[in-house]
Amino acid sequence: MTVSTPCPWRAGRLPSGALDTICDVPGVTVGHATLDDLAIQTGVTVLRAHSGSHYVHKVPAAATVINGFGKSVGLMQLDELGVLETPIALTNTFSVPAVAQAQIAQAIQLHSEIGRAWPTVNPLVFECNDGYLNDIQAMRVSANDYQRAYTATDQIFEQGAVGAGRGMSCFGFKGGIGSASRLATIDSVTYTVGALVLSNFGKRENLRVLGQSVGLQLSGSGSSIMQPQSEKGSIIMLLATDAPVDARQLRRLSARAAVGLARTGSYFGHGSGDIALAFSTAYTIPALSVEPMPSVAFLHETRLESLFEAVADATEQAILSSLWYAESVTGRSDHRRESLRTVLPG
Amino acid sequence: MTVSTPCPWRAGRLPSGALDTICDVPGVTVGHATLDDLAIQTGVTVLRAHSGSHYVHKVPAAATVINGFGKSVGLMQLDELGVLETPIALTNTFSVPAVAQAQIAQAIQLHSEIGRAWPTVNPLVFECNDGYLNDIQAMRVSANDYQRAYTATDQIFEQGAVGAGRGMSCFGFKGGIGSASRLATIDSVTYTVGALVLSNFGKRENLRVLGQSVGLQLSGSGSSIMQPQSEKGSIIMLLATDAPVDARQLRRLSARAAVGLARTGSYFGHGSGDIALAFSTAYTIPALSVEPMPSVAFLHETRLESLFEAVADATEQAILSSLWYAESVTGRSDHRRESLRTVLPG
Amino acid sequence: MTVSTPCPWRAGRLPSGALDTICDVPGVTVGHATLDDLAIQTGVTVLRAHSGSHYVHKVPAAATVINGFGKSVGLMQLDELGVLETPIALTNTFSVPAVAQAQIAQAIQLHSEIGRAWPTVNPLVFECNDGYLNDIQAMRVSANDYQRAYTATDQIFEQGAVGAGRGMSCFGFKGGIGSASRLATIDSVTYTVGALVLSNFGKRENLRVLGQSVGLQLSGSGSSIMQPQSEKGSIIMLLATDAPVDARQLRRLSARAAVGLARTGSYFGHGSGDIALAFSTAYTIPALSVEPMPSVAFLHETRLESLFEAVADATEQAILSSLWYAESVTGRSDHRRESLRTVLPG
Amino acid sequence: MTVSTPCPWRAGRLPSGALDTICDVPGVTVGHATLDDLAIQTGVTVLRAHSGSHYVHKVPAAATVINGFGKSVGLMQLDELGVLETPIALTNTFSVPAVAQAQIAQAIQLHSEIGRAWPTVNPLVFECNDGYLNDIQAMRVSANDYQRAYTATDQIFEQGAVGAGRGMSCFGFKGGIGSASRLATIDSVTYTVGALVLSNFGKRENLRVLGQSVGLQLSGSGSSIMQPQSEKGSIIMLLATDAPVDARQLRRLSARAAVGLARTGSYFGHGSGDIALAFSTAYTIPALSVEPMPSVAFLHETRLESLFEAVADATEQAILSSLWYAESVTGRSDHRRESLRTVLPG
Repeated sequence: MTVSTPCPWRAGRLPSGALDTICDVPGVTVGHATLDDLAIQTGVTVLRAHSGSHYVHKVPAAATVINGFGKSVGLMQLDELGVLETPIALTNTFSVPAVAQAQIAQAIQLHSEIGRAWPTVNPLVFECNDGYLNDIQAMRVSANDYQRAYTATDQIFEQGAVGAGRGMSCFGFKGGIGSASRLATIDSVTYTVGALVLSNFGKRENLRVLGQSVGLQLSGSGSSIMQPQSEKGSIIMLLATDAPVDARQLRRLSARAAVGLARTGSYFGHGSGDIALAFSTAYTIPALSVEPMPSVAFLHETRLESLFEAVADATEQAILSSLWYAESVTGRSDHRRESLRTVLPG
Repeated sequence: MTVSTPCPWRAGRLPSGALDTICDVPGVTVGHATLDDLAIQTGVTVLRAHSGSHYVHKVPAAATVINGFGKSVGLMQLDELGVLETPIALTNTFSVPAVAQAQIAQAIQLHSEIGRAWPTVNPLVFECNDGYLNDIQAMRVSANDYQRAYTATDQIFEQGAVGAGRGMSCFGFKGGIGSASRLATIDSVTYTVGALVLSNFGKRENLRVLGQSVGLQLSGSGSSIMQPQSEKGSIIMLLATDAPVDARQLRRLSARAAVGLARTGSYFGHGSGDIALAFSTAYTIPALSVEPMPSVAFLHETRLESLFEAVADATEQAILSSLWYAESVTGRSDHRRESLRTVLPG
Repeated sequence: MTVSTPCPWRAGRLPSGALDTICDVPGVTVGHATLDDLAIQTGVTVLRAHSGSHYVHKVPAAATVINGFGKSVGLMQLDELGVLETPIALTNTFSVPAVAQAQIAQAIQLHSEIGRAWPTVNPLVFECNDGYLNDIQAMRVSANDYQRAYTATDQIFEQGAVGAGRGMSCFGFKGGIGSASRLATIDSVTYTVGALVLSNFGKRENLRVLGQSVGLQLSGSGSSIMQPQSEKGSIIMLLATDAPVDARQLRRLSARAAVGLARTGSYFGHGSGDIALAFSTAYTIPALSVEPMPSVAFLHETRLESLFEAVADATEQAILSSLWYAESVTGRSDHRRESLRTVLPG
Repeated sequence: MTVSTPCPWRAGRLPSGALDTICDVPGVTVGHATLDDLAIQTGVTVLRAHSGSHYVHKVPAAATVINGFGKSVGLMQLDELGVLETPIALTNTFSVPAVAQAQIAQAIQLHSEIGRAWPTVNPLVFECNDGYLNDIQAMRVSANDYQRAYTATDQIFEQGAVGAGRGMSCFGFKGGIGSASRLATIDSVTYTVGALVLSNFGKRENLRVLGQSVGLQLSGSGSSIMQPQSEKGSIIMLLATDAPVDARQLRRLSARAAVGLARTGSYFGHGSGDIALAFSTAYTIPALSVEPMPSVAFLHETRLESLFEAVADATEQAILSSLWYAESVTGRSDHRRESLRTVLPG
């Protein structure tokens, strides 16, 4: 059961799209497979940039590694070639191989030439460590779960303790999946920037909501503050836009996710894999050289300014939404994370 | 004349050193040369990591380019070798060559073997564009100004509209030089992290002071918000520590300056050269291979956590201090930047 | 059956260690699991940096991505933290997930705290595409094969069409595993640099052996030269040294593998994932912060010069050795790669 | 007086353009200012990508830092924005500031809005250390020399010991300016890749000419080989193409200059600043956002393959040409570098 009240906190001054999720970017869909079975509190979330084959029609993309303590796969080739060639998958740290294998199998099923006449495929799987609530050593996520999440992709999707977000923790509360969108008008054309995060980072005393240090208040007497604590966990921040930008410009966009992240109280902790990826749906790159390459007039570099602000705000909003929509979860060894709503009802 | 009231805003929860400046890191000194003559509102600031020859005893260092729209020089070799070999100089954009030349001349004067029996020297000069208040095209900064700032280096130094900060603007107010320090206790040993910034960035409506969106309030009716404005300018963030860390770890430290920057309201604007550099004074690397290399037990990686928090807080504080201590300045074409104190007296 | 005649080609002027393999670096061992069954021509190769737990005593390491068209995993965290925490595994592209999963399982088996009280583990698996000879879509490599290769690790190991090298092609001939070592004497101390490659790159007409363009001669009339061909495949170059160097210096070492690669005729083809990784066995970094950090006097930067030459020569030699020792193999769809020895008997 | 016999060594199998220089790429011109006065043996070389204002019509470009021991300026912003905005200047290490200052002054002279209504300009100056032949401490290069070289830019230019190449040394012989071009036919369209190098690197015993280790033979008895020698100096490699490629693709092109460099005997020595920059003349990016952005169909990624080969071959050829065309020069303290032609007449 998810909360029906919309998130009461609103980051920034830009308007949102109709859904206020990453699916306001036309063509983008998201699906979950959630595993909720006693000590197993985990799952898979899949994001598709468009409804076709990502291998045959590649989406321009780039990433920023804010802190590289993480086990996500696929970024090296993304950095070299500037394109996605699979849907984007999110899961727990130890399930990356199973999901990557499922992506390979899916690509081969679609295109039997892969690894033969055609090049191999580059799995793109991001992860956070949900080991506090989930028995991560059980490695219960299977290829079937990836397929379920993929099949479930839709413009409408749940946020909070679902999919890959099922077992995640954020600022000592229940974290998980959050999403938001912001609109930027550039030379009379309105573009959408959408964000989807998998939040699993932060120390309670550092939580900031719209600039208020609520974490410091919530952590009470301050005695716990003096104990050394690690900022464990990680955050994955996916950004979509329909603006015509190239991979270099998308890298610049992805770097601004760090602003939204910092505003919520993170200082990019040592053990936190903080990664942002941005892609554009304005055009695709054909896998086969017999197809024509697109001719795109990219945004003038100075026009990125508005998109940068939209990225920062959408990312901050998506993190806040992940906290708002996440219900409390009890998992492994009776570990429990309360919903932030239990102490901060808006 | 500078303000005597200390900055009333305090970022974070960590204690400061005695001076609450970068000079709380033992050995670090700072000096200014200020040019204040009608349309000429500019200068040079020099930071020394120790009192000896930086060329002969190199300081470990690393940098993060948060946004590379900038003309600073010296970062390529710093990235390759992980050491400083000159004092760090700050100035305006068009005076980088004059100051770099002065650094070369100074190094040769100290060591006549440079460029002959010894390798050449790598100037390290950072810049922001003070063209709103200063007639930057006049290029009035000379080698003598670098020498003056160098000679003036001291543990006690002014903040605000002085040295390289003389003509800088920040969030539509007068910006410039700001500094702060934070103490981090790791395994019973207390280390100091100091920050010194040259602030010249931000749109007024985005200014945040300790989480409060004061810029939005100060920019009034909101009508100006709807006008497209660039986040012009830049910020240079220098970080010093006496903790024993290597160049790779210093790069990780420097990346956390982005947190402090974001907290003040920046979203890393397109035209803003946002650069952070961190160095350690815990040991030096000899230029000559006949001298022994130091044997250093570096901090365990997990122990960087406390330093990361100190970097974020000290950077935020240094930016706030640059705004607090800067007096109003009138310069080129009667352009004027008011001190933030005129509207926000603390 | 492998060839008993040693490789007749010798790159460079530096002497080799006793074995002329990467195992001349004390502590390093290598093992293979080879799958040779009709259309299945593939395998796993494992390299251990020392005989203990790589997770508990981490080895300093760094990598250079010469061309990032590849699906290797583990490099993001390596880049951030500068250490290995598993043995290094090599396999075919589609078996990366299975081997990564096996590495995770092995780490958990050794240390049940991983993913619970301790952080998760970072699998480090490199790959090339052996799809010409091997039915890569069959994904026949299993966790058991990783375990077999791990168990087989020894100071003595085979080269050529074995382990991960079983199905690889190089310059149109049979490629695979090759290794070499070179000794560099620095200030009267002799250090060893070892290289181990998985070779799977190059167009026949480009092959150069010790500077001779033998590929051009072997490709005959030249008519085939005029046909556009891709430089498919990839090469993984692992470098070990016992010299006391840190992660930044190891990154510099790894970059020199490109020299050895270029000398053999590669121009870093578009579709070739060309990756080099260097590690040092001179010291280890404890996972647990209760253990003391090592105090190491690293080599003076100017002293890396000799190691750079050793890296270039050892890499060139290892590639030549991979070609020399590889026997002819027939695999999938009667595809066959001849041993270079069939046309160039030394 | 320069040699009239064309370079007898030919790298690779691709055809050249009519001039076999970088000026085979339409629009590219090169000019020199040479200072030849006893101990002053130095100069400036300027390359223009087109005949217009580089500030107003920016050229797409990207660079690879193969070894970052160097003092070139301008690469940080190039990396962020993917464009040139000045002509490219080459000079000696200590004259970088003077030439950068001259570039700023020239840009302001052309566009008085720079640093006022418009952003500042990013000087782009590359350097090598000619201190063996030239009294580099004298800093005799002036703004006037930059202007002279700029004014002299033409499709026809000299190679060898001219301009910035006047005082450079390469493999113990006289180095300097070299250039070459190669043609690559892609889908029936022929593109040109041009290279221009400033060569100042290498140890004599390592020189390789078309795969032959002539350096080893020339360095005689071998006794000198046993002496530790540094690979001092540097090499700047500029690459131009008329192929429609973006900044990301140009970065990939620039990385292949390392292949040509390695073939001549370099192993990217510790003290050698080895930098490659590639730009395309197929389109320009307007500085002013009121001008329309170009719509370009870039080359399909797989089609870069032919350009990569052309880059490797043109770079190798340009280095060989720099050695061939350089006459012997005597400079500071009677230091002398012989032309390679004195011992290897072709």
